[in-house]
Amino acid sequence: MARKTSLSGFPEWLPEERLVELHVLDVLRETFELHGFSSIETRAVETVGQLLRKGEIDKEVYVVSRLQEDEGAPEKDDARLALHFDLTVPFARYVVENGGHLAFPFRRYQIQKVWRGERPQEGRAREFTQADVDIVGDGTLPFRYDVELALVMIDALSRLPVPPFVLRVNNRKLAEGFYQGIGLHDTAGVLRSIDKLEKIGPERVAAALQEELGASPEQARAALQLASIRTEDTSFVEQVRALGVNTRLLEEGLAELAEVVGEAARRAPGTVVADLSIARGLDYYTGTVYETVLVGHEQLGSICSGGRYESLASTGKKTYPGVGLSIGVTRLVSRILSQGMAAPSRKVPTAVLVSLADEDSWSEAQDVAAQLRGRGIACEVSANAAKFGKQIRYAERRGIPFVWFTARGEDGVPVHEVKDIRSGEQVGADPASWTPPAEDLRPVVRAVTAGA
Amino acid sequence: MARKTSLSGFPEWLPEERLVELHVLDVLRETFELHGFSSIETRAVETVGQLLRKGEIDKEVYVVSRLQEDEGAPEKDDARLALHFDLTVPFARYVVENGGHLAFPFRRYQIQKVWRGERPQEGRAREFTQADVDIVGDGTLPFRYDVELALVMIDALSRLPVPPFVLRVNNRKLAEGFYQGIGLHDTAGVLRSIDKLEKIGPERVAAALQEELGASPEQARAALQLASIRTEDTSFVEQVRALGVNTRLLEEGLAELAEVVGEAARRAPGTVVADLSIARGLDYYTGTVYETVLVGHEQLGSICSGGRYESLASTGKKTYPGVGLSIGVTRLVSRILSQGMAAPSRKVPTAVLVSLADEDSWSEAQDVAAQLRGRGIACEVSANAAKFGKQIRYAERRGIPFVWFTARGEDGVPVHEVKDIRSGEQVGADPASWTPPAEDLRPVVRAVTAGA
Repeated sequence: MARKTSLSGFPEWLPEERLVELHVLDVLRETFELHGFSSIETRAVETVGQLLRKGEIDKEVYVVSRLQEDEGAPEKDDARLALHFDLTVPFARYVVENGGHLAFPFRRYQIQKVWRGERPQEGRAREFTQADVDIVGDGTLPFRYDVELALVMIDALSRLPVPPFVLRVNNRKLAEGFYQGIGLHDTAGVLRSIDKLEKIGPERVAAALQEELGASPEQARAALQLASIRTEDTSFVEQVRALGVNTRLLEEGLAELAEVVGEAARRAPGTVVADLSIARGLDYYTGTVYETVLVGHEQLGSICSGGRYESLASTGKKTYPGVGLSIGVTRLVSRILSQGMAAPSRKVPTAVLVSLADEDSWSEAQDVAAQLRGRGIACEVSANAAKFGKQIRYAERRGIPFVWFTARGEDGVPVHEVKDIRSGEQVGADPASWTPPAEDLRPVVRAVTAGA
Repeated sequence: MARKTSLSGFPEWLPEERLVELHVLDVLRETFELHGFSSIETRAVETVGQLLRKGEIDKEVYVVSRLQEDEGAPEKDDARLALHFDLTVPFARYVVENGGHLAFPFRRYQIQKVWRGERPQEGRAREFTQADVDIVGDGTLPFRYDVELALVMIDALSRLPVPPFVLRVNNRKLAEGFYQGIGLHDTAGVLRSIDKLEKIGPERVAAALQEELGASPEQARAALQLASIRTEDTSFVEQVRALGVNTRLLEEGLAELAEVVGEAARRAPGTVVADLSIARGLDYYTGTVYETVLVGHEQLGSICSGGRYESLASTGKKTYPGVGLSIGVTRLVSRILSQGMAAPSRKVPTAVLVSLADEDSWSEAQDVAAQLRGRGIACEVSANAAKFGKQIRYAERRGIPFVWFTARGEDGVPVHEVKDIRSGEQVGADPASWTPPAEDLRPVVRAVTAGA
């Protein structure tokens, strides 16, 4: 990662780095499909009007226009096109447009690039890949899907070559119900203050709650007490109850959060925390909210976030509630690469270089290669009948593990041998049946354990 | 394909259509890797200066700018960013920037979206996916790779659910050498006229050659004679020689084209044609040039084109010659879908719906699902313990072939059964070992034969 890209904020990988990214993408796709999610893609552009509906993000948007607009007056502002900055806004439009063709609850995954005109810094690029899964209902969506999404997330992250992670879960109903119970009604305002907890500390948050929202010292203290609760099991319920607040909304939030945390903790102890300080996104989400950090890499920020929303989109007649999560693939891959957390077993897909004994044997060598490919063995054929030593060095330089030799036997019948150039071992081989050991069939990306 | 997308020129697929596209993408990736090509991706944007280097395409470019440019003066024109309109320009930049980290000849595939501000029409979108493979040398690149690329193309297209295709090959050296031999030195001009052959016919091309390029009637006739040659084997060589022209460049071109066509015809008879009327791209390429049409869909245009270039990029000190091809994935997939050439065996990845006998069994049902997923079987768990009939209808509506039932036996031990809802057959099953028939494991995309 010492290598600098030519345009800041637009990361590009070398082929061996791309293998790590491909591995991450393959694992995510495989996991999402195992959980019954269908792939979709949406176009890269939306209208500016569509993108700005959520407000507040106009600074980040890249608008798109033809270099030579030749159709008279330029488009009206809202009709102009811009690159999408997430996959949620396009998905909402897709669901509304195609609602009649989809089976609800609709389970979709979507892995695409998104663009934001932000100032680039570590963990924040201008072009990056997101991997989203959402389950969206037509009118209603059972709460159980909130629990399921946590399990999908844990399953997906567990299969990746990354350090242990912690899934932090909170619930908007719980927070809002509690604040109402202590007489603070500006939920969004309280959440904005609580969100600064890690950055500015509890005293300054308490001061802000009092100065900006008119909270009493007791109200501020209670809000901070709630935000300090953090448990790896459902014991947060008792801790919240001990604060003596009681509203119906709080109870609903407690029950929901307990169900998510209880089920996740039962399946994957130690990976989930009920963290009542999580405020981020609560403003947008309406119930469960998730975020995820890698242990030891907390400052990287959340690598996987999401939550429940009561209305992904609505068309007047219909609303589409949903629950979803989004994995920051580029953020994750950048960290895997910069920290050497994982590496491919070789740099190229090729398992076998089919060498040439003489210039006339190229076509025959292609026959050998075709036979090997027929059994899923990736190969290349030498372009020249250079000395064997040179052909072997070509394979070495690229990280190709095997070199295939074909000689003309005394009776004119070809004699095949294959050499493992790592061990030097060379054996007779039949192009119709030889296969490399399973671990050499294709490049494998493995986690690199510390100290290894 | 009656369904209209909301933005003309930006196709979006329904989940079952996306399965067809994913299948095409998977086949291409698999084929390219079997032939030893490494995956890379480049950023979606290049500088306008980089994109316009080739000239003539400025009308098609989408420039990108932040909605709220807040950094003082706008960028100079050439430094502005624009979406790439192909994968060749970005690849050239990538090779120059990363030359020191790549092993040459560098074999890469690249499958990404590209954007062109063209007027949308069938077979021509504003956002579409291209799949490119190139082999690039450092300084030199043996001619044999031109033959190899034709074999890669044939292998890739043969694996796709499309009608028979014909690979049309020509050679710039052959054309240029011939024109020189008959005294026509404006090769590019002649090629531009020949390119109109199919559209305006031989008489008007002959007139254009005489009026615009000052050719004599004999020269025009000879050029048209060359362009009329079309053979499925290497017999074009004799036909060209019979025209009585002889230059060293022509001989070189004949030998090269004969090698490509001879080898391709030997391996896949009937899929390759030496077509000496192919002019397209000859202006840009320096030797072999390929294009490909689907038989019966010639008016769709080429679905896979490419050729040899003497200099993909150069940095003053270095030049990088290469040979490559590009498959128009979106054009191909649009046609497959609009003509119903292929269809997935089901609409969703899910093979099994794990049903609920009662509301308390959800967590247990997740255990069953986790066991099945552990063996690569995609499943979903019902969100509610609705009546079994309703749960079965849910599976039917989505196209899920199997429904899993777990009952509590008299001794408290769970009893598992699985029902194939297509046949109605229901059998006892163990979540630790049951697997569906191989063809039901995941959705399979198959070619739909005419009349089936």
